[in-house]
Amino acid sequence: SWTIGIDAGSTAIKIALYNGQDFFCGQRPSGWSPRQEAQEMLDKAVKEQVAAPSEAEKTIKAIYATGYGRVSLHFANKAMTEIACHGKGAAYLAKEALALEKSLIIDIGGQDAKGIVINNQGRVLDFVMNDKCAAGTGRFLQVTAQALGLEVTDLSTIAEEGTDRAHPINAMCTVFAESEVIGLLHKGISRQAIVAGLHQSIARRVVAMVARLLPREESPILFTGGVSCNQSIAKAIEAELQRPVIVPSQATYAGAIGAALYAWEDQKGDSRT
Amino acid sequence: SWTIGIDAGSTAIKIALYNGQDFFCGQRPSGWSPRQEAQEMLDKAVKEQVAAPSEAEKTIKAIYATGYGRVSLHFANKAMTEIACHGKGAAYLAKEALALEKSLIIDIGGQDAKGIVINNQGRVLDFVMNDKCAAGTGRFLQVTAQALGLEVTDLSTIAEEGTDRAHPINAMCTVFAESEVIGLLHKGISRQAIVAGLHQSIARRVVAMVARLLPREESPILFTGGVSCNQSIAKAIEAELQRPVIVPSQATYAGAIGAALYAWEDQKGDSRT
Ligand code: SF4
Repeated sequence: SWTIGIDAGSTAIKIALYNGQDFFCGQRPSGWSPRQEAQEMLDKAVKEQVAAPSEAEKTIKAIYATGYGRVSLHFANKAMTEIACHGKGAAYLAKEALALEKSLIIDIGGQDAKGIVINNQGRVLDFVMNDKCAAGTGRFLQVTAQALGLEVTDLSTIAEEGTDRAHPINAMCTVFAESEVIGLLHKGISRQAIVAGLHQSIARRVVAMVARLLPREESPILFTGGVSCNQSIAKAIEAELQRPVIVPSQATYAGAIGAALYAWEDQKGDSRT
Repeated sequence: SWTIGIDAGSTAIKIALYNGQDFFCGQRPSGWSPRQEAQEMLDKAVKEQVAAPSEAEKTIKAIYATGYGRVSLHFANKAMTEIACHGKGAAYLAKEALALEKSLIIDIGGQDAKGIVINNQGRVLDFVMNDKCAAGTGRFLQVTAQALGLEVTDLSTIAEEGTDRAHPINAMCTVFAESEVIGLLHKGISRQAIVAGLHQSIARRVVAMVARLLPREESPILFTGGVSCNQSIAKAIEAELQRPVIVPSQATYAGAIGAALYAWEDQKGDSRT
């Protein structure tokens, strides 16, 4: 039997299929109709990983939805908050690291940034979230990368070449930073130095946001969400915190994995009764 | 003899020439080199309004600079804060309205928004300012107009056609509002209804910002800055405040006029000694 978690984010939809043992994960852009994209993705993933459509219904015990677009996924059995699912998923992905009773997750997604304190079961103890301002989110990277004529996926490599001469970015606001970046290009500042500066700016912002949640020195800090693929930002956060940061493999899927795990636990609960 | 005020704003440079009696005002876009634009504008205005270059030096008693780019105008005799100059200029422009001892100026510029409380001499008693976030400034209009395929100068007329069915805009952030607007267009919402909604959103934001400065019922409220040319926004602010708002003619030039007035007063002071 299987459970499925779907994280309908603003930029990408992530799916995680769980059989009590292993996870199979995938993602695709949210596009103009996240609901339709999610449905297609689900059908395809079920056919490939689980069973023929005829058998799928008995094999799949529950589908839980999370993320920005979760309420639009009418085929899901339950919608859960991102905070709960991210906490659960991150705890699973980094379970070796979670010997201590408290860990902090820094999650930067396409349109939001979160700090979540969890215990070693992935239960949320406290959190802080910004989903009102594009600054310090994946969107900031997208807008500024475009102004620089770069792909978001190239930013990490380019920033690594400029880390030793990062150019400070004054504007916090995404819109003003976009103009500032164009102005710096005109002045002849290298893309490498500008991108390194942008990464420092994101790191400073997210660290300021989670400051009040910082756990004791020895507690692990995890970095998840779509932006955690950018290793240069992970390093910038480490430099800003002056503490190591763990980026779990499959960190992008933390929310979807958490949703599938909650669905699994609820099923076990049901079968016991 | 003359004094000159130059307001080097983020979007436009404004100039005001004063002979103790009348003002001559002009503006041009700030462009990539505001300093050079300002110099050209000054030379042209002096030649046209004041005197031949040979005589200009004795005729022009002082040039005061204000606005975002004021420090780059090295030819100015003095740089003054925007707040002081806007207060002074707005008091002059609306002097009939300022019988009472306190007035509030709401100033929305290309990249900032201000609330300034002045006395009937134009002296600043209190103020509040946002120049960190593009939301609620001219930039918000520029970005969203572009997403709608419209010119900023067309917004007022278009909004007037949609006021009775304004579509609410949820996003406060300029970047998220841009996406929201594109989504609404895709859904078939009319440009008129969207622009009317955007204007309401700006009005709500600026009114919330100045809330703690609101003067007594009978005191006048002035609306100045580049965005005050948009009559639909002036009406949206009136609706939000449930009080009348005065848009002085030449409201765009309040800063430049204030700078020229300060220069004039300082000259009179000098000549007395
Ligand atoms: S600071 Fe910029 S990015 Fe943040 S809410 Fe304001 S407009 Fe949006």
